[in-house]
Amino acid sequence: MAEKLKIIPLGGLNEIGKNMTAYEYGGEIIVVDCGMAFPGDDMYGIDCVIPDVSYLIKNKSRIRGLFITHGHEDHIGAIPYVLKQINMPIYCTRFTAGLIKLKLEEHQLVKSTKLITVEAGKSVRAGKFTVEFIHVNHSIADSVAFAIHTKMGTIVHTGDFKIDSTPIDGEVIDLARLGELGKEGVLCLCADSTNVERPGFTPSEKVVGATFMRQFQNCDERIIVTTFASNVHRVQQVLDAAAQCGRKVAVTGRSMENMMKVSTELGYMKVPKNTLVDINKLKGLPKNKQVIVTTGSQGEEMSALYRMAFSTHKQVEIGAGDKVILSASAVPGNEVTVGRVINELFRKGATVVYDRADMLHVSGHACQEELKIIHALTKPRFFVPLHGEQRMLQIHCQLAQQMGMDRNHIAIADNGGVIEITGKSMKLSANSVPAGEVYVDGSGVGDVGAVVMRDRKRLAEDGMVVVVLPIATQDGALLSPPEIITRGFIYVKESGDLMKELQNVAMNAADSVTGSRKRGRDDGELRGAVKSAVSSYLFKNTKRSPMVIPVVTRL
Amino acid sequence: MAEKLKIIPLGGLNEIGKNMTAYEYGGEIIVVDCGMAFPGDDMYGIDCVIPDVSYLIKNKSRIRGLFITHGHEDHIGAIPYVLKQINMPIYCTRFTAGLIKLKLEEHQLVKSTKLITVEAGKSVRAGKFTVEFIHVNHSIADSVAFAIHTKMGTIVHTGDFKIDSTPIDGEVIDLARLGELGKEGVLCLCADSTNVERPGFTPSEKVVGATFMRQFQNCDERIIVTTFASNVHRVQQVLDAAAQCGRKVAVTGRSMENMMKVSTELGYMKVPKNTLVDINKLKGLPKNKQVIVTTGSQGEEMSALYRMAFSTHKQVEIGAGDKVILSASAVPGNEVTVGRVINELFRKGATVVYDRADMLHVSGHACQEELKIIHALTKPRFFVPLHGEQRMLQIHCQLAQQMGMDRNHIAIADNGGVIEITGKSMKLSANSVPAGEVYVDGSGVGDVGAVVMRDRKRLAEDGMVVVVLPIATQDGALLSPPEIITRGFIYVKESGDLMKELQNVAMNAADSVTGSRKRGRDDGELRGAVKSAVSSYLFKNTKRSPMVIPVVTRL
Repeated sequence: MAEKLKIIPLGGLNEIGKNMTAYEYGGEIIVVDCGMAFPGDDMYGIDCVIPDVSYLIKNKSRIRGLFITHGHEDHIGAIPYVLKQINMPIYCTRFTAGLIKLKLEEHQLVKSTKLITVEAGKSVRAGKFTVEFIHVNHSIADSVAFAIHTKMGTIVHTGDFKIDSTPIDGEVIDLARLGELGKEGVLCLCADSTNVERPGFTPSEKVVGATFMRQFQNCDERIIVTTFASNVHRVQQVLDAAAQCGRKVAVTGRSMENMMKVSTELGYMKVPKNTLVDINKLKGLPKNKQVIVTTGSQGEEMSALYRMAFSTHKQVEIGAGDKVILSASAVPGNEVTVGRVINELFRKGATVVYDRADMLHVSGHACQEELKIIHALTKPRFFVPLHGEQRMLQIHCQLAQQMGMDRNHIAIADNGGVIEITGKSMKLSANSVPAGEVYVDGSGVGDVGAVVMRDRKRLAEDGMVVVVLPIATQDGALLSPPEIITRGFIYVKESGDLMKELQNVAMNAADSVTGSRKRGRDDGELRGAVKSAVSSYLFKNTKRSPMVIPVVTRL
Repeated sequence: MAEKLKIIPLGGLNEIGKNMTAYEYGGEIIVVDCGMAFPGDDMYGIDCVIPDVSYLIKNKSRIRGLFITHGHEDHIGAIPYVLKQINMPIYCTRFTAGLIKLKLEEHQLVKSTKLITVEAGKSVRAGKFTVEFIHVNHSIADSVAFAIHTKMGTIVHTGDFKIDSTPIDGEVIDLARLGELGKEGVLCLCADSTNVERPGFTPSEKVVGATFMRQFQNCDERIIVTTFASNVHRVQQVLDAAAQCGRKVAVTGRSMENMMKVSTELGYMKVPKNTLVDINKLKGLPKNKQVIVTTGSQGEEMSALYRMAFSTHKQVEIGAGDKVILSASAVPGNEVTVGRVINELFRKGATVVYDRADMLHVSGHACQEELKIIHALTKPRFFVPLHGEQRMLQIHCQLAQQMGMDRNHIAIADNGGVIEITGKSMKLSANSVPAGEVYVDGSGVGDVGAVVMRDRKRLAEDGMVVVVLPIATQDGALLSPPEIITRGFIYVKESGDLMKELQNVAMNAADSVTGSRKRGRDDGELRGAVKSAVSSYLFKNTKRSPMVIPVVTRL
């Protein structure tokens, strides 16, 4: 049997989020990224979603390490949950390590975890793999792509990236190294597809700094800027613009404060002298000397900006004389919540600057022309589009074909699909590994399943009706009229008749069950009869289908 | 006391949808529009939302008529629900009447309702009001604005509109009449604010026809077009493009079929000869002779396009050789569902044309430059921005000020606010009338209140735990261990211990209630003790807060 290299995406395909990919060669495995996803609207009560890693658990003795491209939640968010089941060393750059450490501390995993920092440009051995860290540009500092070297050949895994010719940290993505790899021969390219629907180039992060300068200059108002906390370079540009305009800056919002702390401690943020002040001190200054940097760019209900807008923030009251700059675009699905906050800011009399057209935000992902450059430089034999919904994977596939790649050399997989590469061919194996969504809810991981979710949906939409039937153990006689309790359904006060009717319907249904001579009436039969009678009565009379829960109590 | 004209918006402010405005003068009332809104994500189980019309019910003897600007659901959707409480004559144009009639039939209201059609250009007397119908352009046929004439002066109520210089029906918005009214003197302008955030002009409907031609020509694929069913002119352009390219058209999806029927019967749609065929006949033709027009542009789960994408449509199977054109943009909040359908179409191998940049869709609402023209023509003394979220109302207010209007002559109201105009001044009254959201759920209108909604949210997020306590009526002794039933919560199978523990916790809590000597233990006290003990035990052990429902059964 020919030697095989396997690529197994465990998350990030047909979705945005929970990125995770396993590479398997010579009996050994390395894992790239370990992200979480935000729950969909139909995932009632779920805090976050993580990948199903049962394949990795089953094969944990063969795993040689977890490699992290960068510190966004959709690449590191599942680490604590997965580490509790699989102890593996984590390799990442210094800033990413700083963020992962916060998570490990929160979950008491610092001692048990080997966290190894690797500089961009360096390589690391992990069993039969040698993993080379290659600097890329992205909306968070210290992001890398990987060149995964094996005896069979080299895989380039881009992670999230863009090509920024004027990045804030001065370090342009290492195109030269990608070009060298292309000349040496790349077996397979696994690349980010997030922005493949967009033509052209993603603008440089620097253009947002120019916008800040325009907005800060000749402005008499207090300025409040919100953006993603993890976008260190964006915050850096706020600080720089403030310093240049003689304004002081205060930071508020837990994740923004955490991020500031980590990034300044590790040297990724350079705070201009005498610029940062406590928020209570800031208030003493004239309006045109104030800047507040805050969380809440997605309209999150508990965020600082939300609380400011709805007047529940302890230190900041918004009103006329404030200019709020939203330096972010709404993540798909968040449009409504973001809109709600903007409306409230307007209502308070603030000037709100939020239009995407104004270059208040740029993406961290490569558009079509950037992707083409990466394909052209790496000249891979095979290609696997990663990170994206189905349409993005398909369009990325089309883009590769336009550049001359054979369709047979491209694999569009599902999560859990096994892509097998021999030196000469690539195919999607007929066998897949378990993959899917594991729900994290409260302190529970994975114990909320499909049945529970279906019940929650039902309860949410129509509420529920409990029918308690006290039955004599002896002869199965009904000891008293059934008690009816409703929640999330019409209230007794408003419809007393319906409740009375339901009692009768339940009693009649119970009476209709005769049962066997031996044991009297069977609980299951009783429940079934009552449930069915009450449900159909309810639907007929209210056009609603609450969950009906018959409870038989034997006494 | 000076004579007053009152403007009372009952819906459409601080929201998109359920538009409704009352005008009151000389003791008489007319109502403009009667729309519904789609429920928000947090309105569990709600079918639609309608305005609170209790003010109108209280004053129904003073109402002289309901005037409808056009036939979109957010302007006519609440009619049947409101008519059941207030019998008033409805005045509207012929096409709008056709759509309202469908609703009246569905609700058995045809006989009891006076539905009067009025042509654009004509006027109608209603008590002390004379209402003039003025033709406007919009994304549905036969839309009008109203000039509401009273002895105190004239109010121009635009309704939804845009300025389309090349409309499909050939009738440009009646700018001349608006200009005349301006010269005669307009007391107050009440205008649509939906697109006020957008600079420039909304493109003409005709540009979409050009896109269709580009997409249909030299295309070997079967073409499937989806758009809003009510956009008669859009569908007309599909028919025209198909006819010009020698393709036949079949229509599928209930609302699209209904709309085709009404619009052809009333003469608002002109089907080119030999173009329309049954969908089963269409299938016999070569791919490049086929066009299907269908519903589902918002990714709605039961729509025809959704069923085609997910292979549950009876007649149409999507695959390679199909080109699907989405001639619509996602309504805010629908981005995710629309994305889901697009992904599935890609997965099936179809070509999908969905980019907004390609002029596949144009809005039906006026952008900034169009709004300015209306302000310039009508030259109103006072101005009330209608139809829009807070930010849109504020920006529309700024726009009017930029055109020289005094801020004191502009009123930004909330639903239920009462705007009082005397000849010389306008003010927002200190008293407002009831206004808000009435939920329609199943066959119930208004009987789902805030408590029910809160319960549903709780049930949705954490599920529920029922604890049944059978108690002896005599001495209040627990007759058997409490029964625990859960739904939407962790299942017994997965966590048998927790259930056992809960039984003990409930029993101990019940035992701790001693009660008075006279009556034994009180049910309320028992329920309280059990609820509190079980809830805190659950939160401590699972970090979840399911709804705990203690049921005391006395036997």
